[in-house]
Amino acid sequence: MENLRTPGPTPCPEPVLQAQTKQMINHRGAEFQNIMNGVTQDFKTLFQTKNDLFILTGAGTGGLEAAIVNLFSPDDKILSVSIGVFGDRWASIAQTFGADVTSLKFEMGEAADPDLLRKALQADPKIKAVLITHNETSAGVTNDVASLGRVAKEFDKLLVVDGISSLGSIDCPVDKWQIDVAVAGSQKGWMVPPGMTMLSVSEAAWKAHANAKMPRFYWDFSRAKKYLEKGQTPWTPAVSILYALNVSLKILLQEGLPNIFARHVRLGNMTRKGIKDMGLKLLVVDESYASNTVTAVWPPEGIDPDKLRKTLRDDFKLILSGGQGKLEGKIFRIGHLGYCSEKDIEDTLSAIKKSLPKHGYNPK
Amino acid sequence: MENLRTPGPTPCPEPVLQAQTKQMINHRGAEFQNIMNGVTQDFKTLFQTKNDLFILTGAGTGGLEAAIVNLFSPDDKILSVSIGVFGDRWASIAQTFGADVTSLKFEMGEAADPDLLRKALQADPKIKAVLITHNETSAGVTNDVASLGRVAKEFDKLLVVDGISSLGSIDCPVDKWQIDVAVAGSQKGWMVPPGMTMLSVSEAAWKAHANAKMPRFYWDFSRAKKYLEKGQTPWTPAVSILYALNVSLKILLQEGLPNIFARHVRLGNMTRKGIKDMGLKLLVVDESYASNTVTAVWPPEGIDPDKLRKTLRDDFKLILSGGQGKLEGKIFRIGHLGYCSEKDIEDTLSAIKKSLPKHGYNPK
Repeated sequence: MENLRTPGPTPCPEPVLQAQTKQMINHRGAEFQNIMNGVTQDFKTLFQTKNDLFILTGAGTGGLEAAIVNLFSPDDKILSVSIGVFGDRWASIAQTFGADVTSLKFEMGEAADPDLLRKALQADPKIKAVLITHNETSAGVTNDVASLGRVAKEFDKLLVVDGISSLGSIDCPVDKWQIDVAVAGSQKGWMVPPGMTMLSVSEAAWKAHANAKMPRFYWDFSRAKKYLEKGQTPWTPAVSILYALNVSLKILLQEGLPNIFARHVRLGNMTRKGIKDMGLKLLVVDESYASNTVTAVWPPEGIDPDKLRKTLRDDFKLILSGGQGKLEGKIFRIGHLGYCSEKDIEDTLSAIKKSLPKHGYNPK
Repeated sequence: MENLRTPGPTPCPEPVLQAQTKQMINHRGAEFQNIMNGVTQDFKTLFQTKNDLFILTGAGTGGLEAAIVNLFSPDDKILSVSIGVFGDRWASIAQTFGADVTSLKFEMGEAADPDLLRKALQADPKIKAVLITHNETSAGVTNDVASLGRVAKEFDKLLVVDGISSLGSIDCPVDKWQIDVAVAGSQKGWMVPPGMTMLSVSEAAWKAHANAKMPRFYWDFSRAKKYLEKGQTPWTPAVSILYALNVSLKILLQEGLPNIFARHVRLGNMTRKGIKDMGLKLLVVDESYASNTVTAVWPPEGIDPDKLRKTLRDDFKLILSGGQGKLEGKIFRIGHLGYCSEKDIEDTLSAIKKSLPKHGYNPK
């Protein structure tokens, strides 16, 4: 068995994989309705929200697109707070659909600074919304959305959060933080194969939606809402992924959010300590912003991280991710979210430690 | 076990369901690349095309949206040929994204008339493309795309075909018929759960794409092409659905296209004969256009088709579909595509025959 330690897709527990073997059912029938309503309610609990919540068939990037096209009109001013590849991608989506995007960018490894966000909002009162990546998968950095969100709300802006690699793993209380739209993806902490994206929608988001003129059909929240009233989806959903969610969310609810978050804190701490103990450096600049779902690591000087990853795969069946964007070929990343135990991290660290000498570095 | 006879989702063979239990893998790794390239090649064979072919994560409606946003600019003139709910939906998508859509509509139950298509194209030389539903799932009618397509090509128009409920079940040779974009969905004849949509893209379609200004990001063909060159998808794909396709397409290739098409002809004939033998009427006006994947049936006068469906479900575990659009509550529909045998149709017909007396009709 491989030790899949990418930050998504993440491994799935066997009962979750098995759940997908249930035969297809009519997605306009009573049994489907029960499953759909149950999974939706479980997601609301795990998102810590009473807002509407939709489960749409598509990748997380589809969810990011859905958030944009449902809330905005062309030429709307949006402030994109980006600390990496996924923040940049979201800004590109908004620009593609005609938004007037101002980018507040930070170096990869840094977290967004609430004071700079305040200045950016002061500088342009026409900004309607702030896009924030909660956990930047490409950099292994978790933004302080509580503080950033408070700033956005001081100025009464819509707060739109990419929680794809945080929700269900790192505390992200949607209602308490007044997040208007939060986006998640099934293949992250939810321990389910990729294929579905989940979005919560606040009352303020619905008000924006009512006036939003960007073209939308497949991702349209209004159609999703109309069908969810019948326990359905407007288009044929990924039924087997929904079966998997119906099992995995029960496992997560059984563990309980405080325990889930605490487990991810332990896994994050353990990973970072192990990496530093070997003498390797973390990408994250200030460790108080280090992500508890993914760790980005600088290899020792002169070592090609992609060659190191090949050794780890060939010799230890350990699968890590490489760098993205301008860090491609420069770092490696370890996923420690969802179905992940201390044992998995021990194995991961041990494999890295044993492989480094092959590449000319003797870890401490 | 239920006898699921809806026209999608359709039942899946056990090995296909089981294929989904394979653990997740890195979607940027070598094993994924092999699967992705293999499934793509198998789809090309089954689409009977040498064109590019993309497998995107989403429902069939997402595929219909992808076809529009990748080919057109706002204000482009499009001729929509519609014979039912899915044809109308496609026209709505095109209008939503700003196309100038002319609708050539036919009553549900009728097939599109190539002569009327010729007149419509003569009437407006500015039309760039023709949208045609090959098999209209809401009406149980199969259009003569060979003839309709020839007319479109007489006028040198782009030919864009919704083959969601035909491809892989009813002969739809993409290259021979010069189809520029053909759209399919995993949950139909492919015998796989819903979650992926497949599109073939011709050289002429690529030329249109190069000038197409509708906003697109998630569904963008250029991004899909760039990543497919590495055996990847731009966004995390529905890995477990891909595992299922990797098994189901081999089963289909083993059976062979001529046998698959012949089986669907037999199932279609058997269904229609059984329905007529009971004294019930088909929705399709001219039986030479009857669909071999789905049959739409008028219930006997005075019988509520949705109540009949409830009896079939409660007494026989037979799941049929109801009417859509203006035929909601007026007809019922029997799916006979994909994983479906003569025995399944025998059981279906027998259950209908036994249930009708309960509703006051004694079948012949």
